[in-house]
Amino acid sequence: MLGGGILAARYAHRLEHLRPSTIREILKVTTQPDVISFAGGLPAPELFPVEGVLAAAERVLRGGGACQALQYGETEGYLPLREWVAGEMARRGAPCSSDEVLITSGSQQALDLLGRVFLDPGDVVLTENPTYLAAIQAFQAYEARFVPVPTDADGIIPSALPELVARHRPKFLYIIPNFQNPTGVTLSGPRRSELMRTAVELGLLVVEDDPYRQLRYTGEHLPPVKAWDGDGLLLYTSTFSKTIAPGLRLGWLAAPAPILARLVVAKQAADLHSSSLDQRIAFEYLSTGENERHLERTRAAYRQRYAAMDQALRQHLPADYRWTRPEGGMFLWVTCPDWVDTAQLLAPALERKVLFVPGRDFFPDGGGHNFMRLNFSNSTPERINEGVMRLAGLLLEQRA
Amino acid sequence: MLGGGILAARYAHRLEHLRPSTIREILKVTTQPDVISFAGGLPAPELFPVEGVLAAAERVLRGGGACQALQYGETEGYLPLREWVAGEMARRGAPCSSDEVLITSGSQQALDLLGRVFLDPGDVVLTENPTYLAAIQAFQAYEARFVPVPTDADGIIPSALPELVARHRPKFLYIIPNFQNPTGVTLSGPRRSELMRTAVELGLLVVEDDPYRQLRYTGEHLPPVKAWDGDGLLLYTSTFSKTIAPGLRLGWLAAPAPILARLVVAKQAADLHSSSLDQRIAFEYLSTGENERHLERTRAAYRQRYAAMDQALRQHLPADYRWTRPEGGMFLWVTCPDWVDTAQLLAPALERKVLFVPGRDFFPDGGGHNFMRLNFSNSTPERINEGVMRLAGLLLEQRA
Repeated sequence: MLGGGILAARYAHRLEHLRPSTIREILKVTTQPDVISFAGGLPAPELFPVEGVLAAAERVLRGGGACQALQYGETEGYLPLREWVAGEMARRGAPCSSDEVLITSGSQQALDLLGRVFLDPGDVVLTENPTYLAAIQAFQAYEARFVPVPTDADGIIPSALPELVARHRPKFLYIIPNFQNPTGVTLSGPRRSELMRTAVELGLLVVEDDPYRQLRYTGEHLPPVKAWDGDGLLLYTSTFSKTIAPGLRLGWLAAPAPILARLVVAKQAADLHSSSLDQRIAFEYLSTGENERHLERTRAAYRQRYAAMDQALRQHLPADYRWTRPEGGMFLWVTCPDWVDTAQLLAPALERKVLFVPGRDFFPDGGGHNFMRLNFSNSTPERINEGVMRLAGLLLEQRA
Repeated sequence: MLGGGILAARYAHRLEHLRPSTIREILKVTTQPDVISFAGGLPAPELFPVEGVLAAAERVLRGGGACQALQYGETEGYLPLREWVAGEMARRGAPCSSDEVLITSGSQQALDLLGRVFLDPGDVVLTENPTYLAAIQAFQAYEARFVPVPTDADGIIPSALPELVARHRPKFLYIIPNFQNPTGVTLSGPRRSELMRTAVELGLLVVEDDPYRQLRYTGEHLPPVKAWDGDGLLLYTSTFSKTIAPGLRLGWLAAPAPILARLVVAKQAADLHSSSLDQRIAFEYLSTGENERHLERTRAAYRQRYAAMDQALRQHLPADYRWTRPEGGMFLWVTCPDWVDTAQLLAPALERKVLFVPGRDFFPDGGGHNFMRLNFSNSTPERINEGVMRLAGLLLEQRA
């Protein structure tokens, strides 16, 4: 989900003892064509629905609403797009009204607005451990503290929540139930209902971040955790970045009306509203059947890339390396032997023109030195194989 | 500069003792076609360069960069657009490098990022009095306090700054030097150099908000205050909302590199970057000569609307009402007799289907009960005349 810029800033923070020029070098190298980057969470640009977006833009700007598409709009978002989202929420199994939908400038802004509305310095956020690094960044901007919730192969363990809530009085729990970033773990069906039941008992707000839902390669869709929320405690966010294109910077928040009203005021102060033009282009594009075909093509390509990465890792990585096999998403999560510090491998990997994200960036409370996150969506199978070979060469050399 | 949404929220705050449905009624009425609104700061949508934007969108999405136009981008913004901004800064008389430019999601986001980076609760911002209400809103979100700087017909009085700075230790001074919102006052040339000289002596950061520069109807352009900044103390923000269209949500900040770096990190947490597609469309559009012709047409139309409003006010308003004659911008600022409370006129004005913004919303430290701001850019001369007649009827009735 991260471009070169955010990665560079991440390292700017981590590497602040280095000269700024070193940071710039890292940034530069990520955009060089001979670097194979498994680091970002970028979709494959060659799969973007360029023709569909162009046709949608032409319909918007040739139609009767062209002037309104260039005018200021409502903070809540373009109503037909909010209605589309409400329909999509129903298709996902968690129906809501368009009055409960706020269009955001990507789901990054959704996380930021949640921080803005709910977090004061020192407030606690419960998270999976590890968790999405840009969520850490968004909530850290409000000086939140992070407390991890124990997890296993089925996701977080709801029975651990009562004690954590009693001890830390968290403002909310932040989870990514589908193909979690970075681990790829999916919260099981029974856990979803148990989690929401527990949250209701505890009066705990739950933020459900669901960017990858449409990128499922095997298994069956599970309803969002929101499907079990009868008490207005679940705030759901998703994005058009993975299903149309991230360049439009469009995502959404679905939240109970009283909470949404506060988020709307926060967004108003932040940027008034998201691009009127992009919102209308997205709506026009989604109104055709084309998006379903586009998603099918995207899933097919990513499934192949995923298989290529899994295959390359089997073939090239030493036997004591392990990695996940998530049912969807964009990442594999590699566990290296305990003596490996993946942050230390970043500079030599850059020399070999291959890039990954060291695991410790995903652990808000430290740890994770021997993990790495590998993205497979943004490279062809050939480049994936080549990149894994470069990486494996480095790992074998470290061992020597 | 404000759409119906932000106005409604403004009133939501002011009118929180009212039932929510009343607030919704106010919002609804502003979007009804039979309401003549002088309230917002909306450009005239019928003048938007729809054809030019469409042609630009087609060039972007048919060209070799189409995929990148839909991909994640650098937080700083699309480099060719930042280079265009650097060139525009030079044309305005305050050259800077593209490394000193951050593309923002409208200038609202620029104000928000400034608040995010510089303001802690209780911090003081020096402002003109009255000042732009969305700036008040943006900085109030960070719990800033506002201290007004004395002004006269030439703008703020720099010699008042040393004492204010000594007493209040402000984080920055916020000014709108061209056709100030809401008063229309333009900071004179001598004041600009004196202001910057004083700021440098005091080590005072100055935020120069310049949305209306291109909407000058009489007189000569003055260089931005930034032109006199040799010490890296001036942060300049402007927008494409008035010169292309607000629906693209694009503005910029030009700031010394060390400050810009902090603003970039703040933007990263806020929304990663502004729409890649809109940035490229804006750049493509600006690369033709068309924008100059569009601006000329816009100025001609607004000049006519301004004249229509001035004429209607002369004709219909009682003799003891006064209003400004700014050299540009989008607003006239009306001083009513002291016994008039314009906030009390809002509800009866709504009944007559005419809308304005009461003056007190622009005074961060209270006062201003007898002012009103009238926008002339968003109504035809005929509707302006009709709206002023409706308003004048109400004012005369109040007098009776």
